[in-house]
Amino acid sequence: MKEADNIILGIDPGTTIMGYGVIDASGKNPVMLSMGVVDLRKYKDHYQKLNYIHERVRALIEQYLPDEIAIEAPFFGKNVQSMLKLGRAQGVAIAAALSHSVPIVEYAPRKIKQAITGSGSASKEQVAGMLARTMNIDKLPNYLDATDGLAAAVCHFYQRNVPNKAKSNSWADYVKKNPGKIK
Amino acid sequence: MKEADNIILGIDPGTTIMGYGVIDASGKNPVMLSMGVVDLRKYKDHYQKLNYIHERVRALIEQYLPDEIAIEAPFFGKNVQSMLKLGRAQGVAIAAALSHSVPIVEYAPRKIKQAITGSGSASKEQVAGMLARTMNIDKLPNYLDATDGLAAAVCHFYQRNVPNKAKSNSWADYVKKNPGKIK
Repeated sequence: MKEADNIILGIDPGTTIMGYGVIDASGKNPVMLSMGVVDLRKYKDHYQKLNYIHERVRALIEQYLPDEIAIEAPFFGKNVQSMLKLGRAQGVAIAAALSHSVPIVEYAPRKIKQAITGSGSASKEQVAGMLARTMNIDKLPNYLDATDGLAAAVCHFYQRNVPNKAKSNSWADYVKKNPGKIK
Repeated sequence: MKEADNIILGIDPGTTIMGYGVIDASGKNPVMLSMGVVDLRKYKDHYQKLNYIHERVRALIEQYLPDEIAIEAPFFGKNVQSMLKLGRAQGVAIAAALSHSVPIVEYAPRKIKQAITGSGSASKEQVAGMLARTMNIDKLPNYLDATDGLAAAVCHFYQRNVPNKAKSNSWADYVKKNPGKIK
């Protein structure tokens, strides 16, 4: 089911709750199509979590057929163990995108906050509030991870429309430069 | 092409070179079917590397139809950045296994060295030398990452035959406990 010309799927991959948002990016302003969370707390086993992330991202891609996927990707963390786990969670989400040949772009949390609110140090609540106002969202979700996923998509919507933006070393660029090479 | 009753694929997922080894685990002693490396140095882009790891692990699974996959998984690293990258490399390899419903078991490098040589602090050369002797491998590969991948498979071969071994929190256990639940 493809309802719009241009769809962006935003993901905030976490090891406890994964947030996502889907926007129609074909117009002048982004329009929210869906947002939600994938609650991983019910799975105690690390592999169960990874399997569920992989399956849900695949399902979201198959449902919304996004043209691009924007991922919130922190590059710093508390410790090496938590970063390894986060890397794995990102890895299985990225693999779902790779196997569907959907270009991926990642943004640091600070960059996303900056793009949405104008401040890189904005709170989750401020990001959610700004999204609610600009996108006419009546009811905010219970978990702000959902708005974080949506924020990643909206951040990419703004970023890609910036002329002469700094070149990113992204999978999207690779796909564009190597047409037909990606299976 | 399935030539044996029981196949173990061993993987040492790295961000520079990924090593792998395939063994026939149906007899009393493991028999090497294949080993090699996936050289990621030719890809400068991080996503190209991840895509290549994902594709090659999928190809290995489709070629050898392993019953189990053993992964060498360090839990410590130099810094959070390198652990995030390693986690992503592990993540895309794990996703390839998940999408083929192949059980995964992971072993710490020290555990693998211990299982092969009797010493957890053995060098890569000692591990390779022991594998060469016990498995009658005439010529060792240029890169010891290949023997590291093979060592992961052989370690799992030994471990699973140990009675009353400590329970591992593995994907293999999850698959066994939840038949039909995994797609």
